[in-house]
Amino acid sequence: MAKDKKVQAITDMEVDFGQWFTDVVVKADLIDYSGVKGLFILRPYGYAIWENIQSILDKKFKETGHENVSMPMLIPESLLQKEKDHVEGFAPECAWVTLGGSEPLQEKLCIRPTSETLFCDHWSHVVHSWRDLPMKYNQWCSVLRWEKTTRPFLRGREFLWQEGHTIHATAEEAVEETKQMLEIYADCCENYLAMPVIRGNKTDKEKFAGAEDTYTIECMMHDKKALQSGTSHYFGDGFAKAFNITFADKENKLSYPHETSWGMSTRIIGGIIMTHGDNNGLVLPPKIAPIQVIVLPIAQHKPGVADKAQELVDRLKKIDVRAKGDFSDNSPGWKFAEYEMKGVPLRIEIGPRDIENNQCVAVMRSTGEKITLNLDELEEKIPQLLEAVHTTMFEKAKKNMEEHTCCAHSLEEAKEIQETKGGFIKTMWCGDLECEMAMKEKAGMSSRCIPFEQEHIGDTCAICGKPADKMVIWGVAY
Amino acid sequence: MAKDKKVQAITDMEVDFGQWFTDVVVKADLIDYSGVKGLFILRPYGYAIWENIQSILDKKFKETGHENVSMPMLIPESLLQKEKDHVEGFAPECAWVTLGGSEPLQEKLCIRPTSETLFCDHWSHVVHSWRDLPMKYNQWCSVLRWEKTTRPFLRGREFLWQEGHTIHATAEEAVEETKQMLEIYADCCENYLAMPVIRGNKTDKEKFAGAEDTYTIECMMHDKKALQSGTSHYFGDGFAKAFNITFADKENKLSYPHETSWGMSTRIIGGIIMTHGDNNGLVLPPKIAPIQVIVLPIAQHKPGVADKAQELVDRLKKIDVRAKGDFSDNSPGWKFAEYEMKGVPLRIEIGPRDIENNQCVAVMRSTGEKITLNLDELEEKIPQLLEAVHTTMFEKAKKNMEEHTCCAHSLEEAKEIQETKGGFIKTMWCGDLECEMAMKEKAGMSSRCIPFEQEHIGDTCAICGKPADKMVIWGVAY
Repeated sequence: MAKDKKVQAITDMEVDFGQWFTDVVVKADLIDYSGVKGLFILRPYGYAIWENIQSILDKKFKETGHENVSMPMLIPESLLQKEKDHVEGFAPECAWVTLGGSEPLQEKLCIRPTSETLFCDHWSHVVHSWRDLPMKYNQWCSVLRWEKTTRPFLRGREFLWQEGHTIHATAEEAVEETKQMLEIYADCCENYLAMPVIRGNKTDKEKFAGAEDTYTIECMMHDKKALQSGTSHYFGDGFAKAFNITFADKENKLSYPHETSWGMSTRIIGGIIMTHGDNNGLVLPPKIAPIQVIVLPIAQHKPGVADKAQELVDRLKKIDVRAKGDFSDNSPGWKFAEYEMKGVPLRIEIGPRDIENNQCVAVMRSTGEKITLNLDELEEKIPQLLEAVHTTMFEKAKKNMEEHTCCAHSLEEAKEIQETKGGFIKTMWCGDLECEMAMKEKAGMSSRCIPFEQEHIGDTCAICGKPADKMVIWGVAY
Repeated sequence: MAKDKKVQAITDMEVDFGQWFTDVVVKADLIDYSGVKGLFILRPYGYAIWENIQSILDKKFKETGHENVSMPMLIPESLLQKEKDHVEGFAPECAWVTLGGSEPLQEKLCIRPTSETLFCDHWSHVVHSWRDLPMKYNQWCSVLRWEKTTRPFLRGREFLWQEGHTIHATAEEAVEETKQMLEIYADCCENYLAMPVIRGNKTDKEKFAGAEDTYTIECMMHDKKALQSGTSHYFGDGFAKAFNITFADKENKLSYPHETSWGMSTRIIGGIIMTHGDNNGLVLPPKIAPIQVIVLPIAQHKPGVADKAQELVDRLKKIDVRAKGDFSDNSPGWKFAEYEMKGVPLRIEIGPRDIENNQCVAVMRSTGEKITLNLDELEEKIPQLLEAVHTTMFEKAKKNMEEHTCCAHSLEEAKEIQETKGGFIKTMWCGDLECEMAMKEKAGMSSRCIPFEQEHIGDTCAICGKPADKMVIWGVAY
């Protein structure tokens, strides 16, 4: 690392939130730009965050009976076209392979933008009887969508994700699955990433291409914009019919099975950055931080300091805390800035005087709070502190969301709140597409979701005034 | 699963080894064919084997200081062309993306056949000083090579692998890395997959495109053909020069760094099948078997049988044995055949009389041996039995390799051995490409490697008779 790299400060988030984000992403060594627009390099520190998220989700998927598989990365054009809504949604942003070696292909192949069609094709081979159902699959891979504007993590032409795909004998079971997976995403966000979420249904306009129902979790970023953070789709038997997947039920009658899919992507890392970050850089939730505790020796040339620091690292590693010592010849000031930029949740400082007093100083990245710890209590206190950091971060994010969520009773009111204060705006909605379009055109907001937890804030649609029984949350979204 | 699926026997390996292989791959539920030639679907059982191999290797990579990253899947044509030998080796088998959405791309992009050029491009951005070195990276991904003939696991147009890429200040350090990684592959094969290997250098002809040196591990399959099972490449500073990667050394002088790369792929699963399988199907090494112990209740309708079988499963899971019970209404005979086909290392049978006697019967898939176990000793004996299965499988494979490795002192002798007996043939070799080509043309064998463990079996090249100081192993390879 060039020694002077961190001297260049990052842009203030209040001055230019977008530039702040880009600065953090680059200076915290998360991302490098590749030679192709929209294709990003996840550097070790960025990828380690994803690995930690993967391991949380993968465990939950397996505990709920899902199995990992690997599907091809290429989809023949004819396969993509089998489901009408799906192809309309995805064909315009496909990257197409037209040459294999130097030979033009007979049929062009798109790099998967998502894999519903591949799973359906496979199921049409292997699903025969009710005994074969359910099949509950997941894959970890990257997908390509040829977007016009791109940003690291938030909108890549290529991004890493997991896509779950399941097939069931009954609609009830498939709906149950769709809800269960959304709940797993919500749990991951709230209890691991310290990101409060709103759970709800997407409107028809915002549904996934080909889905009967899309459930979503929506998070609020520091700039009060919304980030769709995970989605779960119920397909009914539409895909099964399009791909002619049938099974013999217990009475030996041929039926169409019901499907779901659900995904979470590296986009969530963008969400972590924009939920928790500050003007010193990243602030990482402890449960997914690649380094949870950085131990910095102070006056490390003095006898015994480096050894003691290393001893603390070893003791923490022994209790499965991801601890690291930095024994480089960079100055303490440089190191403080470096690990603040990288969002390490706890910094431990230990110098000659601390050693004399059998203590160390722990500094919380999220609040700057300093705590003096007796070294004998290290194994007890550090996990508690990490837990406390998580809770503080979650509460702070929750407060931000609550303080920037308002009710409105007309389009004008919604527009004014958005322009002056920003955030999430709740209104009643009649369900008409025209009203949804009007909110977009006139107030610049899309419907984020119809929350599962409905509130009765009026009887009429805020846009058209007709009777309405649904409460919608609107916002400006990434 | 259709009840009658397993009734169809698989082809005898002595009758048609290739068809036997394909039958096993399909009937053990490892693979399904996709709509694109050479792109295979890894079904849950096949992918679980890969996950177990991944977790072994990933742990070893991390223990030796490597970090995971994610590189883009697309390489601009101009980037691929920067290193002359490399592009010559790979361009003929690239799949090219020429359209993004409906727009023709200004420069065509190939789907990565391997990622040296991407890592080099990244390093040219981030390597500046000796302080930045080494960078030791790995990625888990899939790559595409537009092959003409394809076979599940052995030759896919797309295959899953890991590719390690490292960059070092000195040649010595890079060479050391190259050797270390080969040793990790050898350890994985021998001590986890029960596959004995021969370690050695590739000849210039067989080297990786752009490498100064390629190290390989070669395994012998049941049909006596060779499988290259893992390779590690030393690049010198050739790529660094082609990509203009320089660093300031401790004296602040600009130098070129030295690079390596190394990879192991899902091909190794083909190797596991062809090393250990038999006419009843797969035989899996216990350490990577998705199910290590299948517990089958006998007369499960009798009171207490299913409960007892479940209790055994739970006890085994508690000691981290991957155990499963099959309580379906399929017949015991069907279940025996099913889990034999799937190569589950140990089958435990437990029926009413066993329960009376506080015992169960364990059957080893590899040898068919039956052992009666006292149920009180389950936790002690099962891990021992799994270890014994591993050792037996390794010894058997080693014996096969040793019995089919011969010395020859002339091309004619080598040819005759190959035609009558098959296997690996050791000869002295002068080092000339012409002699290597002659062995290929006249005896149908390629050089597998110049083993690290050299033997002096003569003074002259078996092909041309000129003085020779290298012993080469030749074979027919997958």
